[in-house]
Amino acid sequence: MHALVFHGAGKPSWESHKKPVIDKPGDAIVRITTSTICGTDLHILKGDVPAVTDGRILGHEGVGIIEEVGPSVTNFHRGDRVLISCITSCGKCDRCRMQMYSHCRDGGWILGNLIDGTQADFVRIPHADNSLYPLPAGADEEDAVMLSDILPTGFECGVLNGCVKPGDTVAIVGVGPIGLAALMTAELYSPASIICVDLDDNRLTVAQQLGATHLVNSLDGKAVERVMELTGGEGVNVAIEAVGIPATFDICQGIIGAGGHIANIGVHGQPVVLHIQKLWDRNITLTTRLVDTAATPMLMKAVASGRLTPGTLVTHRFAMDKILEAYDTFGHAAQHNALKVVLKAEASRY
Amino acid sequence: MHALVFHGAGKPSWESHKKPVIDKPGDAIVRITTSTICGTDLHILKGDVPAVTDGRILGHEGVGIIEEVGPSVTNFHRGDRVLISCITSCGKCDRCRMQMYSHCRDGGWILGNLIDGTQADFVRIPHADNSLYPLPAGADEEDAVMLSDILPTGFECGVLNGCVKPGDTVAIVGVGPIGLAALMTAELYSPASIICVDLDDNRLTVAQQLGATHLVNSLDGKAVERVMELTGGEGVNVAIEAVGIPATFDICQGIIGAGGHIANIGVHGQPVVLHIQKLWDRNITLTTRLVDTAATPMLMKAVASGRLTPGTLVTHRFAMDKILEAYDTFGHAAQHNALKVVLKAEASRY
Amino acid sequence: MHALVFHGAGKPSWESHKKPVIDKPGDAIVRITTSTICGTDLHILKGDVPAVTDGRILGHEGVGIIEEVGPSVTNFHRGDRVLISCITSCGKCDRCRMQMYSHCRDGGWILGNLIDGTQADFVRIPHADNSLYPLPAGADEEDAVMLSDILPTGFECGVLNGCVKPGDTVAIVGVGPIGLAALMTAELYSPASIICVDLDDNRLTVAQQLGATHLVNSLDGKAVERVMELTGGEGVNVAIEAVGIPATFDICQGIIGAGGHIANIGVHGQPVVLHIQKLWDRNITLTTRLVDTAATPMLMKAVASGRLTPGTLVTHRFAMDKILEAYDTFGHAAQHNALKVVLKAEASRY
Amino acid sequence: MHALVFHGAGKPSWESHKKPVIDKPGDAIVRITTSTICGTDLHILKGDVPAVTDGRILGHEGVGIIEEVGPSVTNFHRGDRVLISCITSCGKCDRCRMQMYSHCRDGGWILGNLIDGTQADFVRIPHADNSLYPLPAGADEEDAVMLSDILPTGFECGVLNGCVKPGDTVAIVGVGPIGLAALMTAELYSPASIICVDLDDNRLTVAQQLGATHLVNSLDGKAVERVMELTGGEGVNVAIEAVGIPATFDICQGIIGAGGHIANIGVHGQPVVLHIQKLWDRNITLTTRLVDTAATPMLMKAVASGRLTPGTLVTHRFAMDKILEAYDTFGHAAQHNALKVVLKAEASRY
Repeated sequence: MHALVFHGAGKPSWESHKKPVIDKPGDAIVRITTSTICGTDLHILKGDVPAVTDGRILGHEGVGIIEEVGPSVTNFHRGDRVLISCITSCGKCDRCRMQMYSHCRDGGWILGNLIDGTQADFVRIPHADNSLYPLPAGADEEDAVMLSDILPTGFECGVLNGCVKPGDTVAIVGVGPIGLAALMTAELYSPASIICVDLDDNRLTVAQQLGATHLVNSLDGKAVERVMELTGGEGVNVAIEAVGIPATFDICQGIIGAGGHIANIGVHGQPVVLHIQKLWDRNITLTTRLVDTAATPMLMKAVASGRLTPGTLVTHRFAMDKILEAYDTFGHAAQHNALKVVLKAEASRY
Repeated sequence: MHALVFHGAGKPSWESHKKPVIDKPGDAIVRITTSTICGTDLHILKGDVPAVTDGRILGHEGVGIIEEVGPSVTNFHRGDRVLISCITSCGKCDRCRMQMYSHCRDGGWILGNLIDGTQADFVRIPHADNSLYPLPAGADEEDAVMLSDILPTGFECGVLNGCVKPGDTVAIVGVGPIGLAALMTAELYSPASIICVDLDDNRLTVAQQLGATHLVNSLDGKAVERVMELTGGEGVNVAIEAVGIPATFDICQGIIGAGGHIANIGVHGQPVVLHIQKLWDRNITLTTRLVDTAATPMLMKAVASGRLTPGTLVTHRFAMDKILEAYDTFGHAAQHNALKVVLKAEASRY
Repeated sequence: MHALVFHGAGKPSWESHKKPVIDKPGDAIVRITTSTICGTDLHILKGDVPAVTDGRILGHEGVGIIEEVGPSVTNFHRGDRVLISCITSCGKCDRCRMQMYSHCRDGGWILGNLIDGTQADFVRIPHADNSLYPLPAGADEEDAVMLSDILPTGFECGVLNGCVKPGDTVAIVGVGPIGLAALMTAELYSPASIICVDLDDNRLTVAQQLGATHLVNSLDGKAVERVMELTGGEGVNVAIEAVGIPATFDICQGIIGAGGHIANIGVHGQPVVLHIQKLWDRNITLTTRLVDTAATPMLMKAVASGRLTPGTLVTHRFAMDKILEAYDTFGHAAQHNALKVVLKAEASRY
Repeated sequence: MHALVFHGAGKPSWESHKKPVIDKPGDAIVRITTSTICGTDLHILKGDVPAVTDGRILGHEGVGIIEEVGPSVTNFHRGDRVLISCITSCGKCDRCRMQMYSHCRDGGWILGNLIDGTQADFVRIPHADNSLYPLPAGADEEDAVMLSDILPTGFECGVLNGCVKPGDTVAIVGVGPIGLAALMTAELYSPASIICVDLDDNRLTVAQQLGATHLVNSLDGKAVERVMELTGGEGVNVAIEAVGIPATFDICQGIIGAGGHIANIGVHGQPVVLHIQKLWDRNITLTTRLVDTAATPMLMKAVASGRLTPGTLVTHRFAMDKILEAYDTFGHAAQHNALKVVLKAEASRY
């Protein structure tokens, strides 16, 4: 088979690779039909994630067809079309029993990180019964592949952790793909207003099309003032941080209302200054979370019922073997007005 | 009457003062029988709270007898013995309707801060129906006065916000009076372990008497390592910050387990560094809160049933007109092994 | 002024009546501009509510203009346009402090029941600060008057108590006005399916227009079988009882899935048989509730933001002095395809 | 090996039986060291549980030593001492992922019901990784065996479902072993009062020793009046039904306060009359539940920390091969003042 293999910072390669095989009784081998690229993959390629070593196949998102299952797998059979969760979970450790699959004792985010991932013709999925989901007949694969990571991440880390409620005023700081996923899923709880903050007018326009009620371009450094004006000086009920840098974290601190929730989604590479001298008496809740994908079954129902159409985030499509072009487009997203970039296996090859 | 009047930093005075009168229909005048001193009062005396201006009577804790009520007060009558909440709440603004009394639009923490307080023979309590609680016959006044502030603060900001549950491992960082209040009320939820961290062995010994299961003296700068050892490397479920300085906040960050809660009680005067580069994927919840005293009725039931005996925190007692001595003792707490210092009105004076 | 006065079963009268006056410091007098009729009013007229005695002005829903306020009212002033809650709450008893306003020690449902109501030119509202809501400029009065009772009832008793969540399968048994209110507000939580059950095809058609995904006419006595088919034998996550008779309660018992919620809204006049021999091990939650109107501020925001347009439930409009005709229409709702019937004061009279 | 085999109503037999073997990759074979008898076992013996057929080994509670594990079991190894949960759960179906293990698609209560149980020398446990718990060194087996069923049942169905909170007034109707388990675990949440209702003074005395604050003998048919007196006419916050007959369910309906929770634990054989004509507007929550044993890890921590000592419920001990005598004692519990009856394997036999 072929796969996108990491050979050190700046050295990805689409190359021939040994096909994975069943290693443990709970494994499944999945033939990838659709995959996509995550912002985290770009970080890996830059060398920011030391755990990823030379020779690793990248990718933690995908949809495919079961090729083979290990002897203890009971939920799936050869030929089933499945969604691959970015989180692998054993289902039987203390963390899994609390639905904190992200911190599974024998799983978590390992695909395309500690074990080979989904940007390949085939992938081995450990603990398949708990880490794959059956796709209903007729499900759109572009909708589905958004449920591997980006939708549950926006929903769990942003919307659920932020306790978005009907009537709330919500701010989403950063409306790249993850922020837009938070936006789409925030609407499941019918907030009264969703204020989107970003530096890029194109992204803000997309946010508006997806339901944002107010847009704030933060280029002038006055996002906090603008949001406070929009909220009559009260601040927001929920501030969702979807970037991962001190500047956007600061905006969240500056706009949060008394009793509000700051829900961090961003992957941070450095500490932030928490203005607890201002916040200690403001009844604030601040949360962090690696996505657990515990909400994936619900999100699949929401897609099946037509409440969510996450495939609208897809702006570019490539054949799998053009993956280096896809990385280039996604890596220069602003220039290409790119949101999510989808990789399609060529059916003819099988 | 007499009262403790603030005349600028370092200048408290026990002096003759005009007796308060009913100003609005919801007011009550309470004759103080028992009061106490809060750490915040020490901060005010140092000049750290600019909102408190020359001429202000200090104090936001107290028990007393209703002297007079305004025409719209219906819950209380002259002669009723009452507990005074440190938080004044109108009961009819949006914040009060959410039980966030701390941010009442016409109240919050105003006693001994924006209006005259309880370290006096008499005090005027606005919104009396929502800001006073009837004391049952036979209630001990030393138990009761701990419910003005310290018990609800430890409970709401520490225990409730920290989501302490049966079976949890809880760390309380700082076991001064507030930390001890968190300890006493944490036990209402039967955690499996309560690890107390402090610099002062005397306080740690008191914590042990009140139910701490493990003690860590943090003088050697190794509190984090020690707590991690005690928890087998897992960290704690709940870390309660009960000091309000960067060093203790850091300990909380260092010991929190995946999925855990950091509940801040401390009053911070400066920012802290939040190590979000380590915490972003750890499913952490961090909370701040000014006490709402929404839990006061429950705490009163817990005291009445004998589940809580907060009067055990009282180490020193003074006649009200010896209040300057009381401040001196409380201000040098370590030297006197002082926890809470109670002020008693002399019954003979009335 | 004029008012609809109850003179015993079957004897309503639109007659001249003494205008109400301020009685207690917290009272407000409101000039009614829009009112409506509730199913409960029909019950009262039939003599089913013994607490309502001869001479009582009926009605507990309305929108109007503040005419006068008592001395302790601070939230409202003469000339303010307000929404009247069907629930009167003092804001200072133990029940109000838990937001269980329905069981306020000095309020609850008293309008048009224990004290004179809103089907009149003027009404006295006790505890006005907690029992009225300011209407924003430009708010539609037909939308607003639906928030006096029917929307919060459907939402709190049905949707909130039923814990409707994104992705859920919800059944609403009975889609009269209350059931439709539950339907409209259930959508705030984006369930995957809403199955509506009724005997009347016209109502089912309205339900479909308002978002029902499946319709079941229960005339053939096979509603349970039909819902079980629609759910693949699993039953529903939430069953909302919006009628108040044993037959509809039975349907709810028959269709509830393991772990599901039965949320009763219906006003029942007789006991029901609970098949606990089948339900004891099914992890079922059954709730009852008199509306607290604690959600009214949120619902007002949802209306203001355009998420809810409850005025669409209004099918008929009458001048206030034609109220007996309005009762006749509402009392024969099926014949007139009537849902909510609105009463408008004639502006020219003032 | 030997086992207690059901041969139809009234025909149990302690007889030689084939030793179980690993059947599926997730199975474990456990050598029983301690078991006990449940009230449900008595029902089975009476023929009340038609699913249990001739030849079935009874028992769903036990502690033992792992004898052998299937190839996909990773949490346990030969020689580990384990607690057997009465609920078998696969950990990978939709119900298990919601922690509703009681309704596992390939498990639930099957031990001693649909498959052979624990009143034997050896038992096969399917889905061992999710259905067994490792016992810490030094754990008392009598404490532990109470965690197979009775403690999690009292806690989850009674205390958690009843939402027992600090300060609450709780009534437990029926203080047999299950009611006493609810009592012991209710105390983890520090209610202010626990009123115990039973017909048997001996059991009430035990309840008092375990922390009941008020006792009501219901023989005179006046339990409701008595509880209402004790609560000043308010009723209780939580009523736990721990018997399973209409009379006790009626007491719960009669004593529940506004906003209260009725938590059913009892196994009911017939319908009950629900007085919804009185309860519809009382904001009541009524729950049913088959124990999920999701709380077992927490309960094990509470035992390990000394907060719970459930072994105190054990009144009688028998060697395993005297199990018919044990059944006789347990079947005439009142006569023997029996609560839980423990069965001990004779170590010498191995």
